[in-house]
Amino acid sequence: MHTTHFMRAEIGEQPEVLRRLARAEWDAIQQLARELHTRGLHYVFLAARGTSDNAAAYFKYLFEIANGIPCGLAAPSVVTLYHAQLNLKEALVVGISQSGQAPDVVEYLAHAREQGALTLALTNDPNSPLAQTSHYTIPLHAGEERSVAATKTYTATLGAIYLLSAALRAQSEAPDHLHHAATLIEQVLQAEPHLQEATDRYRYMRECVALARGINQATAQEVALKLIETCYVMCKAYSVADFMHGPFALIEPGFPCLLFAPDGATFATALESAMKLRAGGAETIIFASNAEILAQARTPVPMPADVPELLSPIVYAVAGQLFAYHLALARDLNPDQPRGLQKVTKTR
Amino acid sequence: MHTTHFMRAEIGEQPEVLRRLARAEWDAIQQLARELHTRGLHYVFLAARGTSDNAAAYFKYLFEIANGIPCGLAAPSVVTLYHAQLNLKEALVVGISQSGQAPDVVEYLAHAREQGALTLALTNDPNSPLAQTSHYTIPLHAGEERSVAATKTYTATLGAIYLLSAALRAQSEAPDHLHHAATLIEQVLQAEPHLQEATDRYRYMRECVALARGINQATAQEVALKLIETCYVMCKAYSVADFMHGPFALIEPGFPCLLFAPDGATFATALESAMKLRAGGAETIIFASNAEILAQARTPVPMPADVPELLSPIVYAVAGQLFAYHLALARDLNPDQPRGLQKVTKTR
Repeated sequence: MHTTHFMRAEIGEQPEVLRRLARAEWDAIQQLARELHTRGLHYVFLAARGTSDNAAAYFKYLFEIANGIPCGLAAPSVVTLYHAQLNLKEALVVGISQSGQAPDVVEYLAHAREQGALTLALTNDPNSPLAQTSHYTIPLHAGEERSVAATKTYTATLGAIYLLSAALRAQSEAPDHLHHAATLIEQVLQAEPHLQEATDRYRYMRECVALARGINQATAQEVALKLIETCYVMCKAYSVADFMHGPFALIEPGFPCLLFAPDGATFATALESAMKLRAGGAETIIFASNAEILAQARTPVPMPADVPELLSPIVYAVAGQLFAYHLALARDLNPDQPRGLQKVTKTR
Repeated sequence: MHTTHFMRAEIGEQPEVLRRLARAEWDAIQQLARELHTRGLHYVFLAARGTSDNAAAYFKYLFEIANGIPCGLAAPSVVTLYHAQLNLKEALVVGISQSGQAPDVVEYLAHAREQGALTLALTNDPNSPLAQTSHYTIPLHAGEERSVAATKTYTATLGAIYLLSAALRAQSEAPDHLHHAATLIEQVLQAEPHLQEATDRYRYMRECVALARGINQATAQEVALKLIETCYVMCKAYSVADFMHGPFALIEPGFPCLLFAPDGATFATALESAMKLRAGGAETIIFASNAEILAQARTPVPMPADVPELLSPIVYAVAGQLFAYHLALARDLNPDQPRGLQKVTKTR
C-alpha cells in the first residue's frame, strides 16, 4: 500500500537521502566554509517560498544559535516589484528552491550579487537558474521529487544547512550526526502504524494550529503546510510565545492543537503551554519523547528518545509528514493530487 | 453605540493620534536620524510580538523599499532560551512593544546592546523597561490603550516608522504625509455603515485567509490577528505569492479570502490573484480603490482614492479593524473581552 503514492515513497527515502548528502557534499561544504571564513560572514539573508521558506526558518535558528550569525528572511517583492536597491554587500544571501526555478528567488539572488553580496543556492537541481545565478551551490542529492507535497527535499535542505553550520564551526563529526538523524528517522518510520491509527480521530477536523518554540518553529510551519496541501485543513503555525499574544483566544473545548516538543532548551515553555492548552480544553496532539508532556496530550505521538536538539527538526518533520499523509488517506483524499497545485510554482 | 466599546472608541482616535505624533516627535526623530547617519546604518533587526510584530513587518518593507536597508525579524528565543551570542555590533536593533513590558523583547534588546548594537525602542510608554533598556526611544503618543485588541498603538507605531524612514531620507514633508493619512482614515471612518453591512454575511464564517503582497503583508497579518482575537475566526495571512505555493489547495467554492489591494507596485499581482481566486470559486472580500479589482469581489470594500502606496498600510488597517469590530458585534461577541487574553502578555 505504502508505495502506491509518491508522497509515501519519498517519505521513506529520507534516511538514505541524508546519508547520501553527507557522503557526497561534506568535503565541498568544508571547502565552502573555509572560503566564507576568509571573506568574513557577518549576517545572512534568505530568499525562499513555501516549503523552502520553512527550511529557511531552520537556517535562521541554527545559524543564530550555533554560529551567532544573525539571519533574516528576505521579502523578494522588495526587489521584484518595488525595485529597491538593497545594501547587501556585506551579506551572504542564500536562495532555497528545490526546483531552482522560483523566479522571484532567482531575481532576488541576482540583485544581491549585483549589490556585492556573496550568494549561495540550496537546490535539488545544480543546473537550475538559481544555481547558475549564485556564486556557490549545495546540491541536495534527493533524487527527483515527484510528490507535489515536498518531503525529502525539505529534510535534505535541513541536512545541507546542518552540514554548513557545522563546517563553519570546524565540527568534523557532522556527517555522523546526519547518519544518526537517518537512524532516528527509521525509528519514526517504524512507528507508522501508531501514527496512522492516531489520524482517524481527525477525519472531520476543519482547522487546527501547529505550535512549537525555537528551532522547531520550522517543523510547525512545515507540518502546517503539509496539512493544508494534502488534507485541506486550515492550519496555522505559531511560536507558542506568539500564540499567547492574541491567538490563544481561538482556544475552546475541542480546538485541535499540534505541539512539537522535543527535549532541550525550549522544552519547559512547551510543557507550560501544553498545560495551558489543556486547561483551556484544547485537544492536543503532542509530538515528544518526554513522558510528562505526553501525559498532557489527548493524542500522544511518542518520538525517539535522545534526539539532539539541533537535529530534532529533521526527525520531527518526518512524523508530521506521516501524520499529514495518513490523515489525507483517512479523509479519502489523494495526497499526490492536491487540488489547484502544480509541482513547480512560479511567482514574481 | 460606537463609544460603548473601548475598541471602537480607540479606532476613532487614530487620526488625532497620528497628528499628535507628527507634531510631538518629528524634531526628535530628525535628530535621531542624524545620529544614525553619523554612526552608519547597515542593517536592522526587529524584535516584537503579536501586533507589534506586524508593525515590524511594515518597518522591514518600508526600510528596504525606501531606504535600501536590509531588515530582518528577530527570533527572541535564540537569546532568551538558547543563550546565543549574536554578532550584532553593526546592527540597529529595534524593539517594538506598546506596553514596553514584553520580557523577551526587552531581553533581546539588552543582549543586542551588550553585543555593541545600537538599540531603539518604539513604545507607548517612555518609562517602560523596553525604553530604559534602549539607547533611543520613540514614544507613540497614542494615549492609554484600554482595548485588549490593539488598534491605535498599531497605526501610531506605523506612523513613527514612517517618520523615521523619511527623516533618514531628509524628506521634510513627512509630517504632512501623516496628516494626509489622518484625513484618509477619516474617510474610511465615514464609510463605516457600508463596512458594518458587509460583515453580516460572515456571521457564521469559521475560517478565512487574509492576502496581500508587499508592504500590505503587514495589513493582512494585523487584520488576521484582529479577526482571531475578536471574532475567533481562524484566519491566516499570506503573501499572495506564498499562497500560490501550496495553500491555494484550500480554495473550494465559498472559501472566504480577504484581499488588500491598494494601488501601486503590487496591484497587478493582486489583480491576477483576485481572478484566480474567483476562478476557483472563492468568496472574495476585496479592500481596494481600483474599480476593476472591486468588480472581481463578492464583497467589495471601496477605499479612498489616491492613497500613497507607502502609507496605505496605515489607512487599510483601519478598514480591517472596523471589519473585525463589526463582525464581532454581528457574532454577538464583546470585542473588548476576548476570551483567554489579557492586555499585556509576557513570554520569555
